[in-house]
Amino acid sequence: MAKKALISNKIQGKCRAVIENIYPVVEGGRFPVKRVPGERIDVKADIYADGHDIISAQLLYRKKESEEWHSNDMELLENDEWKGHFYAGAEGMYEFAIKAWVDHDLTWLHGFEKKAEAGERLDVELMIGLRYLKEIESMVSDDDRHMVDNAIRLFSDASFYKEAVELATGAVFAHLLEHYMLIHNATLSLAYDLVVERKKAAFSAWYEFFPRSSSPEAGKHGTFRDCERIIPRLAELGYDTLYFPPIHPIGVSHRKGKNNSTTAQPGEPGSPWAIGSAEGGHKAIHPELGTMDDFVHLVNHAKAHGIEIALDLAYQCAPDHPYVKEHPQWFKWRPDGTVQYAENPPKKYQDVLPINFETDDWKNLWLELKSIVEFWIDKGVNIFRVDNPHTKPFVFWEWLMAEMRQEHPQVIFLSEAFTRPKIMARLAKAGFQQSYTYFTWRQTAAELREYLEELTKTELREYFRPNFWPNTPDILPYYLQKTGHSHSAVRFVLAATLSSNYGMYGPVYELLENDPYPNKEEYHNSEKYEIRHWDWFQDKPMHQLIRKINEIRREHEAFHSTYNITFCETDNDNLLAYLKMTEDRSSIVLTVVNMDPMHKQSGWVSLPLHLLDAHEGQELRLFDLMDEATYRWNRQWNYVELDPRYLPAHIFHISLK
Amino acid sequence: MAKKALISNKIQGKCRAVIENIYPVVEGGRFPVKRVPGERIDVKADIYADGHDIISAQLLYRKKESEEWHSNDMELLENDEWKGHFYAGAEGMYEFAIKAWVDHDLTWLHGFEKKAEAGERLDVELMIGLRYLKEIESMVSDDDRHMVDNAIRLFSDASFYKEAVELATGAVFAHLLEHYMLIHNATLSLAYDLVVERKKAAFSAWYEFFPRSSSPEAGKHGTFRDCERIIPRLAELGYDTLYFPPIHPIGVSHRKGKNNSTTAQPGEPGSPWAIGSAEGGHKAIHPELGTMDDFVHLVNHAKAHGIEIALDLAYQCAPDHPYVKEHPQWFKWRPDGTVQYAENPPKKYQDVLPINFETDDWKNLWLELKSIVEFWIDKGVNIFRVDNPHTKPFVFWEWLMAEMRQEHPQVIFLSEAFTRPKIMARLAKAGFQQSYTYFTWRQTAAELREYLEELTKTELREYFRPNFWPNTPDILPYYLQKTGHSHSAVRFVLAATLSSNYGMYGPVYELLENDPYPNKEEYHNSEKYEIRHWDWFQDKPMHQLIRKINEIRREHEAFHSTYNITFCETDNDNLLAYLKMTEDRSSIVLTVVNMDPMHKQSGWVSLPLHLLDAHEGQELRLFDLMDEATYRWNRQWNYVELDPRYLPAHIFHISLK
Repeated sequence: MAKKALISNKIQGKCRAVIENIYPVVEGGRFPVKRVPGERIDVKADIYADGHDIISAQLLYRKKESEEWHSNDMELLENDEWKGHFYAGAEGMYEFAIKAWVDHDLTWLHGFEKKAEAGERLDVELMIGLRYLKEIESMVSDDDRHMVDNAIRLFSDASFYKEAVELATGAVFAHLLEHYMLIHNATLSLAYDLVVERKKAAFSAWYEFFPRSSSPEAGKHGTFRDCERIIPRLAELGYDTLYFPPIHPIGVSHRKGKNNSTTAQPGEPGSPWAIGSAEGGHKAIHPELGTMDDFVHLVNHAKAHGIEIALDLAYQCAPDHPYVKEHPQWFKWRPDGTVQYAENPPKKYQDVLPINFETDDWKNLWLELKSIVEFWIDKGVNIFRVDNPHTKPFVFWEWLMAEMRQEHPQVIFLSEAFTRPKIMARLAKAGFQQSYTYFTWRQTAAELREYLEELTKTELREYFRPNFWPNTPDILPYYLQKTGHSHSAVRFVLAATLSSNYGMYGPVYELLENDPYPNKEEYHNSEKYEIRHWDWFQDKPMHQLIRKINEIRREHEAFHSTYNITFCETDNDNLLAYLKMTEDRSSIVLTVVNMDPMHKQSGWVSLPLHLLDAHEGQELRLFDLMDEATYRWNRQWNYVELDPRYLPAHIFHISLK
Repeated sequence: MAKKALISNKIQGKCRAVIENIYPVVEGGRFPVKRVPGERIDVKADIYADGHDIISAQLLYRKKESEEWHSNDMELLENDEWKGHFYAGAEGMYEFAIKAWVDHDLTWLHGFEKKAEAGERLDVELMIGLRYLKEIESMVSDDDRHMVDNAIRLFSDASFYKEAVELATGAVFAHLLEHYMLIHNATLSLAYDLVVERKKAAFSAWYEFFPRSSSPEAGKHGTFRDCERIIPRLAELGYDTLYFPPIHPIGVSHRKGKNNSTTAQPGEPGSPWAIGSAEGGHKAIHPELGTMDDFVHLVNHAKAHGIEIALDLAYQCAPDHPYVKEHPQWFKWRPDGTVQYAENPPKKYQDVLPINFETDDWKNLWLELKSIVEFWIDKGVNIFRVDNPHTKPFVFWEWLMAEMRQEHPQVIFLSEAFTRPKIMARLAKAGFQQSYTYFTWRQTAAELREYLEELTKTELREYFRPNFWPNTPDILPYYLQKTGHSHSAVRFVLAATLSSNYGMYGPVYELLENDPYPNKEEYHNSEKYEIRHWDWFQDKPMHQLIRKINEIRREHEAFHSTYNITFCETDNDNLLAYLKMTEDRSSIVLTVVNMDPMHKQSGWVSLPLHLLDAHEGQELRLFDLMDEATYRWNRQWNYVELDPRYLPAHIFHISLK
């Protein structure tokens, strides 16, 4: 007994299987993998044991609060790599793990079959088989009772040698070993987290506008009541998420003027991101927009039209924000009694003070920042677009997102970080449900293809949900500057069909207002610094395109995921073609975009027939959802042509006969 | 106060730096990285923080028992990847970690320089600089005291504005910030293990022979005393490790006969791997070899000649091994009262019973198996070649190796696993100091190059130490069958110069006895099943080659590592060229092997001049250590020729003028 004590009780000495290199595991398990209900989780691992026995492995998964694991069998690929999968259930926290063991019964059957083939005597093998039958005897179902009783009879009696051998190598034993596994000395891996979030985290169409530009009267400050007038229009165009830049009182001190001037003229409204004044801070509403009641009314009005209001979460303060006086310890004071204004190089925010997250009072600061989110959740807001999250500590986001997952799992945060790749990834790992991307600057077919492959075929797919924006109030890409309908149409179609989450900043976009600030990727007379007046009810080709594309996205489930994309070869670099489909092939869509907004382009597109479970010569019916034309293809390579004056893209719904 | 309790005390809320993706980390830190004293550990990680402040990072390391960390600065590569390194100290267990923090002082200096360049006023910046100076005032060395006092004087007095600005942007501040870092709110990574083992783990020349074949008289069973006669010869040829197949009593029941016959004739000696008889088991000596005293005498005799004796550790039993009666619970009994003999497909070991590691009595089993190793350590043996470790559980090896690291860190285990790659890697992770490899079957220049790149440029280099064997008693590769000196010479030179650990099974090798068992990669009349008689003292060209190569290996430190290899392009596929050198370039060796043993081959070899810190036109002196010829090269591409009748390879020692 003293001797035994020398071996730690933590060691599971009889468990011979090894499980390593499990995928997907984010940062060694620190962060959960993400899915929405119904999405599939493919799990891989290296699994093996000593010796030459056969091993079996199962993928285990369960909702975190539940006692019992579900299990799916895993299968060996090659080079000791195994795979299994399961489907995300309802929203909530899940965990998954892998179990593997030396399967003595399968090993016995395998040896039995080999010896039977070699014509060897099998008496001892039958005796071992009988042991197995006796062990499962008490657990078999009524349906299998006779089968097992009969097998025991044949295995027990040497005069039935021939019949017993036949039984052991036939379907009966295969059935029994599959249904009555005797699992001994199984190795269990660590468990890893999965968070299943609501479907909107994966599928959404965002529209952004400045509520102060909503007035029907030129020169007047728009209000939430004015916004209500616009809601049915946005619903009719097919948007489901309406995101407002900050709606809080705007600072007076160091207020910005038109075109980012550092000196505002009297009467200029300032940037809404300069949050806070004597009239209140992050929990207050800019008086000219209306009252809190007006806001709640708008939220409910939008909801009735199928639209969720998303607010901007910008953790920063104008110099006259109440926090600055009430919590001076949350700012970093310089020896001259000032605070250095915020920057996100090359941008300078002279009207904004950053929060000092290294304050000794960080716990109170965090709780206050969390309370801001809770304040607006209480008003009916469940989506937040987070301003420059990469300028606030990751450890804070990790905490806030974990708190939200526990207490308000319906809330979706969009990370507005246009920065270095590992930083954008880390924010997504920390819990942001959606992320802005480099789409805005990926222009050629090759660039887009490479970027989509990275987003959908690497580990990013497990936790990073892209949201594609062709423009934002901060970014008017060079590609769109001073161009007409066709350029904007291409970028819109790409955003909305490549990514299941996309958004646009309007109405500049659909009205083709794309005058740049000289030599910058920014808008001239940007709404960030002034109130604009728009005709919200025009119906130009861009409106028609938006309406059509949003309708297609809603109706064709293939567009509800970003990860189901397969690019198709074309013989013309101006044609970008991609197939998207649901796992059960109930929704198959082929999009072919003419990347050249100026000229008609034609060429040949290669359809990956094997993915469609189709073959050369088989007739496929293609229905162009854009112009309702029908085509019949029966080959791998097929001809297409696109004239930008008429259509930016084909979006073919494919039916197999 | 109640509010604060809501945030876990485990969260370090002020630590803004993120450290992720640390390399090298084996299986998430479950296993240590391996080195020998003086070897370098290159550590990489992704490190970044929120915002745009400058961050600093240090690599920390310490011996496990010591309180204090050493630290080396890390440096930013690109894309947020940082690197640092340290050198392995004396043998023992170490750990390393990474520390990173937002460096406010460097950030200040960087901002200061930018504003100075832009001609902005720096009064506030100087006040911040003064804060730093006051903070380090109490910690500066006497040498720097005056420097700091002077800086404080200038920074404190507005009339020295110009001098203070000059000081801040000059060498003085760079010096201070480098030497007096104020580290606040640093993020500390987890610590990861490093084991530093004795040099022989990385550099060794093994020779294997069957002690029973050592008699000077044909037909007689050799003894340990006979072996002593051979020791000086092996020392003179340059070997430092002599490995014996099992030396224990050989089972009688199911004993194997000549050429693996399953029925031994009377008087046949059997396979030494059929361990155990009435005369004892793993702690006994086969009586015909001598006594325990004889063995200890041999161990000491060998040690006096610079040779360590390595024993075979084969955890398996002949049917008449005492364990079978004393511990029947350690074997897996079939219903007919027999135990299925061991297999390592396609090999069948009818004379061997495997141990059942799934026994309920596994703790006693493990302790007994450990006691075998300790028994022989006590006799002076510190190297074990482990037979088929992949047929015993990984969890057992992991435990045994960890125990050994604690209690007998001088012991080296060589893993004899010729099996699937992940299994071979796992054994090395579990702690085996050396591993057999696929070298035996890598034949062409391209195959060898690819294999060496895998062994030396992937994560394997952190824990897998290859030991290259051109043959073993189990393997006579097709390449060597029925060939002459040149074939064996090529394989020997490759093994001994590609890998810092190598071994050969002789004297069949140097005597060119390479008659195969028909259609197998095995020896005919293998010593595994019979006693052979050899002339140990011939001096053929192969002996001369062995002596020369072992001497070169000892004298040229570049050959003391496997990982320092760089392959050189050649214009002839029959020429394999590789450069090896020490980090300080004090030992640089270029080996060029003629892979064609039948014909003279010539061609051009490209020297990677940049690695030598040399340039086109610079004269290099090459001294061929094989034939003592001298060459002068001054270009990238250089001509070589090799005639297998004369030399299998050039081994050039390179000196830079």
